[in-house]
This record gives sequence, structure tokens and C-alpha cells, in this order.
Amino acid sequence: MNTPHHFPQLFFDLYQLTMCQSYWRGDPTKEAVFELSFRTMPPNRGYLSLFGIEKSIEYACNLSFDQSSLEKLADLGKFDPKFLDYLANMKFTGNIWSMNDGDILFAGEPAMQLRGPIIQLQLLETILINTINLRTLLATKSSRVVQAAAGKPVIDFGARRAHGLEAAGTLSEASFLAGFSGTATVNSGAYVGFPLVGTMAHSYVLSFDSELDAFRAYASEFGSDCTLLVDTFDTMAGVNNAITVAKEMESRGDQLRAVRLDSGDLEKLSKFAKEAFVHAGLPYVNIVASGGLDEYRIEELEKSGARIDGYGVGTRVSVSDDAPWAESVYKLVEVEGRPVFKTSKDKESSPYQKDVYRKFDDTGSYIGDVVSPIGTMPPYTEHKSLLEIKVASGRRVEPQCPIELSRSRHLSEIGMFPARFKKLLNPDSYPVETLYTDSVGD
Amino acid sequence: MNTPHHFPQLFFDLYQLTMCQSYWRGDPTKEAVFELSFRTMPPNRGYLSLFGIEKSIEYACNLSFDQSSLEKLADLGKFDPKFLDYLANMKFTGNIWSMNDGDILFAGEPAMQLRGPIIQLQLLETILINTINLRTLLATKSSRVVQAAAGKPVIDFGARRAHGLEAAGTLSEASFLAGFSGTATVNSGAYVGFPLVGTMAHSYVLSFDSELDAFRAYASEFGSDCTLLVDTFDTMAGVNNAITVAKEMESRGDQLRAVRLDSGDLEKLSKFAKEAFVHAGLPYVNIVASGGLDEYRIEELEKSGARIDGYGVGTRVSVSDDAPWAESVYKLVEVEGRPVFKTSKDKESSPYQKDVYRKFDDTGSYIGDVVSPIGTMPPYTEHKSLLEIKVASGRRVEPQCPIELSRSRHLSEIGMFPARFKKLLNPDSYPVETLYTDSVGD
Repeated sequence: MNTPHHFPQLFFDLYQLTMCQSYWRGDPTKEAVFELSFRTMPPNRGYLSLFGIEKSIEYACNLSFDQSSLEKLADLGKFDPKFLDYLANMKFTGNIWSMNDGDILFAGEPAMQLRGPIIQLQLLETILINTINLRTLLATKSSRVVQAAAGKPVIDFGARRAHGLEAAGTLSEASFLAGFSGTATVNSGAYVGFPLVGTMAHSYVLSFDSELDAFRAYASEFGSDCTLLVDTFDTMAGVNNAITVAKEMESRGDQLRAVRLDSGDLEKLSKFAKEAFVHAGLPYVNIVASGGLDEYRIEELEKSGARIDGYGVGTRVSVSDDAPWAESVYKLVEVEGRPVFKTSKDKESSPYQKDVYRKFDDTGSYIGDVVSPIGTMPPYTEHKSLLEIKVASGRRVEPQCPIELSRSRHLSEIGMFPARFKKLLNPDSYPVETLYTDSVGD
Repeated sequence: MNTPHHFPQLFFDLYQLTMCQSYWRGDPTKEAVFELSFRTMPPNRGYLSLFGIEKSIEYACNLSFDQSSLEKLADLGKFDPKFLDYLANMKFTGNIWSMNDGDILFAGEPAMQLRGPIIQLQLLETILINTINLRTLLATKSSRVVQAAAGKPVIDFGARRAHGLEAAGTLSEASFLAGFSGTATVNSGAYVGFPLVGTMAHSYVLSFDSELDAFRAYASEFGSDCTLLVDTFDTMAGVNNAITVAKEMESRGDQLRAVRLDSGDLEKLSKFAKEAFVHAGLPYVNIVASGGLDEYRIEELEKSGARIDGYGVGTRVSVSDDAPWAESVYKLVEVEGRPVFKTSKDKESSPYQKDVYRKFDDTGSYIGDVVSPIGTMPPYTEHKSLLEIKVASGRRVEPQCPIELSRSRHLSEIGMFPARFKKLLNPDSYPVETLYTDSVGD
């Protein structure tokens, strides 16, 4: 989408603003450190595909209040006019460290850290959680689908049941980062440049007097750029109609690209269709499957020997349906150099700004992470640090990372983890060691 | 939110545009009827709270392509320039019938029907499904929470884990329609006018040297408009600190409005807190509960006799977590007066534009619905028709219905259904009778 280079108007929870008025009344320059992390892993997730960092940095660096927002706040009658004047002139002046979009993240590891005036950092709470939570959930779900599809192309068909128009665009981005081959969502393709892929709907077939008429009309319009949907009435008859049209296309020098199966027994029907096309001398016609697919169903199909060449996934992936939310949190860990943490039951937080290190063996394969108070990494020989400075005194250290690079990073990083951490059901738990110093608890 | 009075740029699936180029090549004036419905009820849903109709009508009536969109389409190299010229001048000229926002909907009933040139209606497929699907899921989830809370106020705390910034605004609207008392999402309150409610975060408490200092600072800033979060360290100690501050507030003529419990055993802690405040002569202090709440948990708390005066609900409701998607579909039912339907396995559609009638007994209580081909309603004495003409020849018949009226409608309509259809787990199935005429299947 056309990303807005401004802070979305008043995207706050009310308490952020009221707390900030109190901070302002006290000492608005009080320095704090907040960390954004996932408290636990969502069900069946062996890893998280981090996404939302670049967007979060954009929002943070653009934290501001326009005149219209300030007038709306004044209308609420809750705020001191002098506090609103303060907000009118406020800019983000803090530092941000983070992992990168496309990195692999685990529960308990800070994905992002912010150091700066508490008043600014508190105002970023809701938007940063929202931005990283959704993108990471969608990228993770999509990454699992890519794993299941075992190298076959996967296309995003999810716009219609994503949670809103914005979420549909976010889904295109997250699934592209995770390794999808393209999207059917036109604005994502047209404005962001993702490969656009489309087929046809049942309504198209129904609008003609016969399925054969429909296939002929579409093939004559789009030539070789043509995928025929064959299950409107009876899939086997639909495949035979597709064969008829594919042969007519050959006589014009075109080649039918694919047929799509959207219902029924996809294993059986894909084998039937593939054999029928091969038998008819049309071995190049691809079989694309869709209809309620997710990583679990695709893994089953792959194991069954289904003759499917590519997958279209929509609804279940578009909402990350088996994990539509996660315990993403944004926690205060230091105030004026003093470590802080809460002790609420089952919601404890941990103090200090932290480092995260990833250890690897001599083949380069990752073997475990260490989270430790900053500057306290033990002398492991083979490790890399995952957190990098991204923003210094309110300004980006480097330009925004293009999503193509984040995609490359993700595909490369995911390959460095042993398969047991990437199982779709009950994956092994990747070791994350958390080190504290003696001063915790003071 | 500031609703855009235009069609969102290129919010289509690619196949919509390719099919439409084929329709255009044939006969772009070919008349069709599409119906939008939910194929099945999501898990544990005895009813659906319909929402998204007004927004959908706004999108439909504004269907258009701006110059930038047309240039992006041209760049894709897939479309005939003459087709793009056709799109440049296209406007929506069809008719729309629908139920109303706030109505109660069941599976198999058309919530919306569109009659007009097939090329226009096909272009509306993805955006209409997206708009009605999400809003109805969120309104339904919220309505269930309102039922569970049994008259106690419920506040939307869901912005941070809704699926995007747009979805957070949609959630505020859907939950308000369903009967929530307010939202913490500032832009929804400031721009749409929903009541805004806020408390404080754990980070606020942690930023002070002690919990008591934090409570005092907040109370002195906001006087009686003050809810203290008491679970940062130890809830019982937190309640005692709140009592200390509440008494100090009384000496200034203020009254502590509430305390919030966000973790632990909410039943036990609410009873402890309520008794402590009563014992301290502060019976007016409300107990607000939050933290992973949904309709199931709230129903348990209400049954347990918890002394909770109001609920804040976030994550689970914000994504409708036990039903994050539904089988919302947009199906072609007639072409040029000819009934059409598909026979795909488990995805059959049914032909003809339909009427929907709701029958009631002599107390006014609803007893069952009838879906029948248009004009074929049997002569039940007590019934009302649910579908109304909303748009004629591309123009609204009446102005947009304000959300306050949709909210009133929903609260009134939901009261007309017997309790057995509104149970949160395994509700009785509300009778929906579908009548067909002999000509089906031709």
C-alpha cells in the first residue's frame, strides 16, 4: 500500500494520553527503556517470523500530533491545554535497537527496544504492539505454509476474509516476506509490486450458458495467461472441458497454464486431472489447488502424493486462524537507569535492557539463543548478536530495508534451523537461555 | 474513523478484473443478481449480529477507478486499453436490497442482494465480503460478551491486538453497535464520538518509586476521573494503597471511580477488593476486571458471584478468537432472469433472488425464518420481511443510518429471540426454512 509517512491520527489507548499528562506534570524528560517481545509461543509455533520492524520504526520516527488531532483532544475536556501545547511540539528523540524483519524470533526475546523520554515511549505502546503483532502472526503462518508446500509455489488469495482492507495489504506483504510467490490482491501487486496471480470465479462459469462456453471465452481473452476453474459442476467433466479448450488453444499457438481445483477430494482429483492432461498430450498444464487450505492440509496433500503443482491459500492463513493473536507485550524495563519489573501472577516482566545472541555449531546450524542483560554475554565462540541500533536520537541510522531483502533474509535464516524446530505440530522447543545478574530483584 | 467517500484504490482480487474484461468483451450490460450470505454458522454462534451494510452500500455507490489506479492497471500489461477506458467511465447503476445493520442474521439468509450489470457486481465481490464478514464477526463476538455481562458495562480495550489500525477502528464500531459502553481507542472516541474510557498501565506504576506514589500522582492529576490499576506487584497490597489514596481524595472532595484487576483469581480478588472498599467506607469504588476476558470467562465470573462492576475486553474479542473467520459468500443466483447455481461438493449454491421473512408468536417473540424465491411467501399471519430496497439505480433510497440507530435496533432485536438461541455454548439452532419452487435444477 501507499505507506503514509506520518503518524496515524490519534492511534492511542486513552490511558497512554492520561498517563503522559501525568508524566508531563512531573518530569517529561525522565528516561526509560521499553522492550517489545512475545511472552509465549502461540500454539504449535516452533518459531516466529518477525515482521513489522520497519513499519514500527517509521511510525516511531513520525510520532506527532497534527492540529486536527489536538483540537479533537481539546474537545474531550480531559486534558490541560498546556499539555496539548507540549504535544504539539513533541518529536521522537529516542534510540531504537531491534532485530530485522525476516529474522526468526522466539518467546522472551526482545524484538525491539526503545530508550528515550518515557512520555514518548508510552505514546508508542499500542501502535507498536499492533504493528508487530499482526505482521509477525501473518508472516509466521505464511512461513509454515511455505514449509508445508515443499518448494511448490503458494499464492495469497486472502483479501476477502482478512480483517479489513488494510489487513489484506498487510497479508500480501507478510506472505511475500515468508516466501509466497504472489498475491491475487490487486492493490498489493499494482502499488507494491508483488507478482499478481489470478484465476476465475464460479460466478464467471455460471454466467455463461455452459462451462465450455465460459472456458472458451476466457481462453480467447487471455491466451496462455489462463487458469480455468474446473469444479463448478463436476470436476471430472470440468477437466474434460479444459482439455477440449487446451487443444483449441494449441491450434492458436497458446498453452493452457493451469486448472484450479477448489472443492472435493483434492488428492484424488489432482491425480485424475494430471493423468487426464498427460494422456491428452498436455503434460504442461499445471494443477492448482485451493479451498480451505492451510499448512496442515497442504502437508497432508504433499504426503499423499497429490499431483498438485501450486497452492492458493486464503481464509485460514489470512487470519492466522489457529493463532489469531499472540501475547505480544511492550514492557518498561528501566527508568532512569533503575531496573523495573512487575510481579503480577502469570504476567511477570523482567528488568534491564537486554542483548540477544544466537549460537551456532560448526556447520552454521543454530543451536540456541541467550538473552542477557546488556553487556553480559558469556564468551561463547560461535554466536551472533541479533539486536542492532536502528534509530539514534530520533533519526534512522540506515534507510528503510526493502521487503525483498527481508524476504531473502527470512528464507536464508529459516534454513539455518534444524527441522525439529519447524515441525507444524508439536515442534521441539528451541533453547532460549535467560541470564540475570545478581541485582535483579532490588 | 473518517470514512473515505470513495472506493478504496484497486481493492480487488485479480480475477475480478480479468473476468470483467471478458464480460466487457461479450456484453457488459448483461444483468445479474448476486447475494451475500453466510453459508454456515461459526462455532457456538446461535445468531449473527449483522454489521457492514451501510459501509458496503457506501463502497458500492462509489465504485470507480481514479486516474492513478488506471495507470497502475495499464502498467500490469494484462488489460485492453479500451477496457480501461470503459472502467474510467463506469459508475454503479444497480439496485441493492439488504437487511439493516444491527439485524439478527442466520446462515443461508441473504444479508444483501445486488441486481445490475454483471461487470459492476463482480467488481464488488471482494470488498463486500471483506466489509460484512469482519464487521459481523466482531459485532457477533461483542454481542455475546454483552449477553454474558448481564447488564454490566463492557469497554473495548482491543486496539493493540486487532488485525491492524483499521481493524481497531472497526472493532470500536462493531462493539458499540453490539452494546459496549465505550472504547479505549482514542481515535474512535475523538472522531466518531464513542464514549472514551481509560485506566492506567503497569508501566505507569513501575515508573514511580512506589505504587503509592503512582496512585497519588494519577489521582491528583485526574481527580474523580480516575481508575487505579492494583495488580502490578500484589493485588491485595494494591487495594490497600488504593484505599489510602481514595481517602486522601475524599479530603479534596474527589471520589475514586474504580480499581482495575488485570491478573490472578478475579473472582476471589474482586470479592476481597469490594469488601475492603466497603469496610473502609468507600462503597462507591467500582471493581473493573480485565486480562484475557471473553464471553465464556465473563459468564463464569458472573455465575461465581464475583463482585465485578464492569469489564474491559481486548485481545480475544478483538480478533473473534474462537471464530476469526466465517463462510461469508457472494454468489451469483440469476443471469438475465435465468436461475443459476453451482453443484461443487459441500459448496452448493442456490438459485433465484430471495425473500426472507421472520415469523413471531403472539408475544412478539421470534419463532423462525423463511427464505423463499422472491414473491413466494406463504400466508403466515405474523411475520415481517427483512430485506429492504436500499439503492435504486445506483442511488441511496435513504440517507446513511447512524450507528446509534443500528445499536438501538440490535439491542431491541436481540431481545426478541428466546434465550435458547443465545446460549454461548451449543445454542439451539434457530429454524430457518428454505423454500424452492419446482423450477430449481433446470
